[in-house]
Amino acid sequence: MSHARVVRAKSTSNATARLLDYRCFEGTMLTEIKSIEGIRVAAVNVGIKQTERPDLCLIEARAGSTCASMFTQNKFAAAPVIIAKDHMGAEPNTRYLLINSGNANCGTGTAGVKDATALCEKVAVAAGCSAEAVLPYSTGVIGERLPVGKLAKKVDALFSGLSDDGWTHGATAIMTTDTRPKLVSSEFELNGHRHYITGMAKGSGMIKPNMATMLSFIATDASVPTEDLYKALRQAVMKTFNRITIDGDTSTNDAVTLFATGARGEAIGEAHPEWQKFCHAIYEVCRELAKELVADGEGATKLVEIEVSSDDAQVSEAIGYTVAESPLVKTALFASDPNWGRILAAIGRAPVEGFAIDEVGIFLDDYQIVAHGSVVLDYSEDIAAKIMAQKEIKIVVKIGTATEVCSILTSDLSYDYVRINAEYRS
Amino acid sequence: MSHARVVRAKSTSNATARLLDYRCFEGTMLTEIKSIEGIRVAAVNVGIKQTERPDLCLIEARAGSTCASMFTQNKFAAAPVIIAKDHMGAEPNTRYLLINSGNANCGTGTAGVKDATALCEKVAVAAGCSAEAVLPYSTGVIGERLPVGKLAKKVDALFSGLSDDGWTHGATAIMTTDTRPKLVSSEFELNGHRHYITGMAKGSGMIKPNMATMLSFIATDASVPTEDLYKALRQAVMKTFNRITIDGDTSTNDAVTLFATGARGEAIGEAHPEWQKFCHAIYEVCRELAKELVADGEGATKLVEIEVSSDDAQVSEAIGYTVAESPLVKTALFASDPNWGRILAAIGRAPVEGFAIDEVGIFLDDYQIVAHGSVVLDYSEDIAAKIMAQKEIKIVVKIGTATEVCSILTSDLSYDYVRINAEYRS
Repeated sequence: MSHARVVRAKSTSNATARLLDYRCFEGTMLTEIKSIEGIRVAAVNVGIKQTERPDLCLIEARAGSTCASMFTQNKFAAAPVIIAKDHMGAEPNTRYLLINSGNANCGTGTAGVKDATALCEKVAVAAGCSAEAVLPYSTGVIGERLPVGKLAKKVDALFSGLSDDGWTHGATAIMTTDTRPKLVSSEFELNGHRHYITGMAKGSGMIKPNMATMLSFIATDASVPTEDLYKALRQAVMKTFNRITIDGDTSTNDAVTLFATGARGEAIGEAHPEWQKFCHAIYEVCRELAKELVADGEGATKLVEIEVSSDDAQVSEAIGYTVAESPLVKTALFASDPNWGRILAAIGRAPVEGFAIDEVGIFLDDYQIVAHGSVVLDYSEDIAAKIMAQKEIKIVVKIGTATEVCSILTSDLSYDYVRINAEYRS
Repeated sequence: MSHARVVRAKSTSNATARLLDYRCFEGTMLTEIKSIEGIRVAAVNVGIKQTERPDLCLIEARAGSTCASMFTQNKFAAAPVIIAKDHMGAEPNTRYLLINSGNANCGTGTAGVKDATALCEKVAVAAGCSAEAVLPYSTGVIGERLPVGKLAKKVDALFSGLSDDGWTHGATAIMTTDTRPKLVSSEFELNGHRHYITGMAKGSGMIKPNMATMLSFIATDASVPTEDLYKALRQAVMKTFNRITIDGDTSTNDAVTLFATGARGEAIGEAHPEWQKFCHAIYEVCRELAKELVADGEGATKLVEIEVSSDDAQVSEAIGYTVAESPLVKTALFASDPNWGRILAAIGRAPVEGFAIDEVGIFLDDYQIVAHGSVVLDYSEDIAAKIMAQKEIKIVVKIGTATEVCSILTSDLSYDYVRINAEYRS
């Protein structure tokens, strides 16, 4: 199998080692990508937007696999999202995922829905299954029609290319402005059986997932009933993909899909004594993929965790996102400028009530800058500047009794973010 | 008197002439800055952050003037905001405004409050009035102590420099990242008497005013009781300064103060038959100053109005701000790229319920791009690209019955926004 990039961010200090890890126990992440029994992947180039990389991917799950998915909450859900939800409702045994990059098939009305349906039917004929067992996914520019003819012509090539080892090829095919494929594998034991999970994700801009990330496809060889699988996925997504923001812009095409092929070991569900172990393994894979998305955020030069604690979970979340999405905080992070006044101003404008400013403490990593709402007496700009110069930074906000923690991962706002998004279609 | 820059944005097409003007009637704006009887202004250089421009301004209103103010809703209100509110509560006859740029005196705790109070007392002694008749204002970097000694030494020079013609000098002193002073004058008639209003404002980043802009000082020679004056100010601010956003970051120091010196004509209040005329004159001055702030927004190359109409005022406002603050929409505006999918995606993620996407229409100026939630059949990228290349653009979103209109002014997101905010303290 191909070797994965090391997916666990190398920490440069104890403080940064904690990024999104505060509720983490023993890690099970692997440094190479494992194929998953029961899953085959293929990818080809269609030439939708570019002719060098593959841009169409097919994922096959063996018959009897279970499948769980979460999709964007954006009201302008794209045609493939509408179809995928319909198909999952009509047919519990999802067998194929067909994913293209370069075109989002969104804002395309009923024509877009017909296009996505036609492609599912094409795959279904080649596979000998129902069209409802095929789910479509698209990512790229909004508002243009899919070149259905060109895509349909490649379906046979996809089927003949299906391979246990196709994950890296597939992860490359689903990229848009991503600078690298994002893949992780992990292992866990249940009842003495060793199991594996492998996942891929893409996403670099328009990233503030709401229920799922841009696109992520994960598979495990464990045997898990559909309903339980969905619970494990949802629990993981809420703490990982739904806790990252690059630019606050929620995509119209977000989707994450998890297969359990049941190729190894006995069935496990919520009632199983080792259920939490399984959930944690799924959580870890989602967490590492979410980190990868932020680290490869458009123009990102820093990986930043915002950890807010207060006595109200909603207050912590609202303050966390306000700080994470403040253009002034993000440009200060890019400049390595310890201009903490911008953090303070962002906290002060967060859309929440019920805290007093003299309860507010602000830390960069472990270094306290603000206590009781104003700058500490012995504040050292030199110490703060050194922390801001790190590649990974943790901003901690503590308010009052601080029992409810919300942790959000984000990136900085650089010239390259502007360049990438000003040039995206040219 | 000095000639003002032409403050009414020159329109390049009928569509852009409408920017924030949809509820406007006969204009009364002047192309030169009028002094206001009863108001004197002075400015000096203290050298707080820079030594070239003046950075300390004193505004004097004659005894008997009335005064109305609105301040930031940021929970981390700066020390001068706290003191100004206290003083206005204790003493109805405000006589002096002392304003410095280069230092926000925010996040400075009780020490900052003492600093602001000491400066008011220094002015009071020189003027022979109570300290409560003096209001302090600060703008600049957060978290550093004011150099009170240096500032206090300049108070005498300010008093000897007070002049009817000091407005332009004063508007220069209150600038931070602004590239130009912002001043407007307007005139109106009441009962056959001609009256004038002149106002200055500053603000270029950390601009999403919530109750007032960064700093704005306005005066009229009309005679208006304090309570009515506040009503006129509030009404105007809610439709102007509170409807602009450059980066979504609400300042800790926002303030707008309006004097009515009563130097001309008879008293006018809410019950007066020409009250609406007076309110409209205040509104116009606030509107022009608000436009100036956005046009001079950090790194701004475009002036953009987002006009959203739906059957619910809150829905219109939430969608308007989501589009106006989307980094992806803002970079597309910078690039003159008619990537309208980003507008659609922003509408779809706005934090509102209760509209169906097939009710959504999107226009660039008068050109319809999206109807019933998807792209129009005869969409022309060429036409859309021409509109996006304009310096002033109107994005119109119409939802359903479209009776409640919310209009927001914003700017684009350019390399220079990142440069200005990455370099701000260096």
